[in-house]
Amino acid sequence: MKLGKVIGAVVATRKEGKMEGLKILVVTYLDESLYDTKQSVACIDTVGAGEGDVVLLCSSSSARVTQITKNVATDTTIVGIVDLICLGEKRIYVKSRGDLN
Amino acid sequence: MKLGKVIGAVVATRKEGKMEGLKILVVTYLDESLYDTKQSVACIDTVGAGEGDVVLLCSSSSARVTQITKNVATDTTIVGIVDLICLGEKRIYVKSRGDLN
Amino acid sequence: MKLGKVIGAVVATRKEGKMEGLKILVVTYLDESLYDTKQSVACIDTVGAGEGDVVLLCSSSSARVTQITKNVATDTTIVGIVDLICLGEKRIYVKSRGDLN
Amino acid sequence: MKLGKVIGAVVATRKEGKMEGLKILVVTYLDESLYDTKQSVACIDTVGAGEGDVVLLCSSSSARVTQITKNVATDTTIVGIVDLICLGEKRIYVKSRGDLN
Amino acid sequence: MKLGKVIGAVVATRKEGKMEGLKILVVTYLDESLYDTKQSVACIDTVGAGEGDVVLLCSSSSARVTQITKNVATDTTIVGIVDLICLGEKRIYVKSRGDLN
Repeated sequence: MKLGKVIGAVVATRKEGKMEGLKILVVTYLDESLYDTKQSVACIDTVGAGEGDVVLLCSSSSARVTQITKNVATDTTIVGIVDLICLGEKRIYVKSRGDLN
Repeated sequence: MKLGKVIGAVVATRKEGKMEGLKILVVTYLDESLYDTKQSVACIDTVGAGEGDVVLLCSSSSARVTQITKNVATDTTIVGIVDLICLGEKRIYVKSRGDLN
Repeated sequence: MKLGKVIGAVVATRKEGKMEGLKILVVTYLDESLYDTKQSVACIDTVGAGEGDVVLLCSSSSARVTQITKNVATDTTIVGIVDLICLGEKRIYVKSRGDLN
Repeated sequence: MKLGKVIGAVVATRKEGKMEGLKILVVTYLDESLYDTKQSVACIDTVGAGEGDVVLLCSSSSARVTQITKNVATDTTIVGIVDLICLGEKRIYVKSRGDLN
Repeated sequence: MKLGKVIGAVVATRKEGKMEGLKILVVTYLDESLYDTKQSVACIDTVGAGEGDVVLLCSSSSARVTQITKNVATDTTIVGIVDLICLGEKRIYVKSRGDLN
């Protein structure tokens, strides 16, 4: 899976492939140092991601292997919201927000 | 899904893979700022897209997950016509045309 | 699908994946202006394409979605011979040959 | 399969696609000389890989063809820990660690 | 399929995805002029390829469409040993070896 950051949303009233009612977010890919690669993609969200969240993106046929995207015409799906990324001993990303237990 | 803009069409009288009767459009990929990347692709259209439309492109096996492209030899399918793209608070694209309700 | 131009052929006597008897052509990818990208690929031909033909290439699992390539180990298949490409009002490619009706 | 080196881990408490309980590692791709390409990917681990291990990465739908990742929304899976890489007569990589028999 | 040249081998004692007993070769991709692109990949061999052989590589789910790789976690498989490549009238590659009839 690639890492990305949610930066926006797409609205498409005319669409196909069982996409009705699904949220389409714009995500920019991050490199291993979490720098913005300036390459983005439109994704179906399955985990309630919001703007600024660092997310896990699953592509190809695996993008359809979630309860929400089964039989949906998606080639890139958000399958996780990242809480922590460690490289060696170093925590390079820690998500901090109110609703975490 | 990637974002693209319809710029043309392809006619192929001799074709395989249940493509008979399906419209093949030429679409140029757009980056997140909606600039033309100068890379294009031929796609099966499932939503009645026209020239100039900003569209959602679905690739790989997911390109076949629509009613129209089931069992069709397509690796890139137009699955939505984009009405609105927001990055943060900013609307970077608004589709305006007569036939919208 | 990507656009390509047939430039040659590959002969492989020892092969696997139900490829026996199928023609393998070398195709160079074309960009939207039909310039040669100098990147090429070996493809199974399903439409009787010949050298110089501009063709539609279908990749990934969709490369197997034709009568000829069902269950064949191909990741890129020629699925159409292009007759006409229009960008806006402009015809950028017209195939002209004797055997067209 | 591509070659990579394990450099870290990702924790995501909110996730979809039957990923619960699976370890997600950060792997940087290596080129044929085993140099770090500075491009990384998040992968499901199926072989107990640890930091510093050189691993085999399997992508696309094949990433789901292991006992652990069947029906899991993964597009890149670690499917092997590399012990030895030979280019011609030359051993360019030999894994040496205590728990090898 | 892409063209490649076998340059080495990988040994991995700990592996998953029904890879036991299968030979994993290192292959460098060739461009259309058969120049080494310096990009390589680890592949399952299904045709008995040896070092120096020019081979056909099949990727994605099609990499599993051979008798040997059915249900195997491979995303790139060697599916043919190339004997001859012609571009136009010119033979740019002819394999010459003793065991050819």
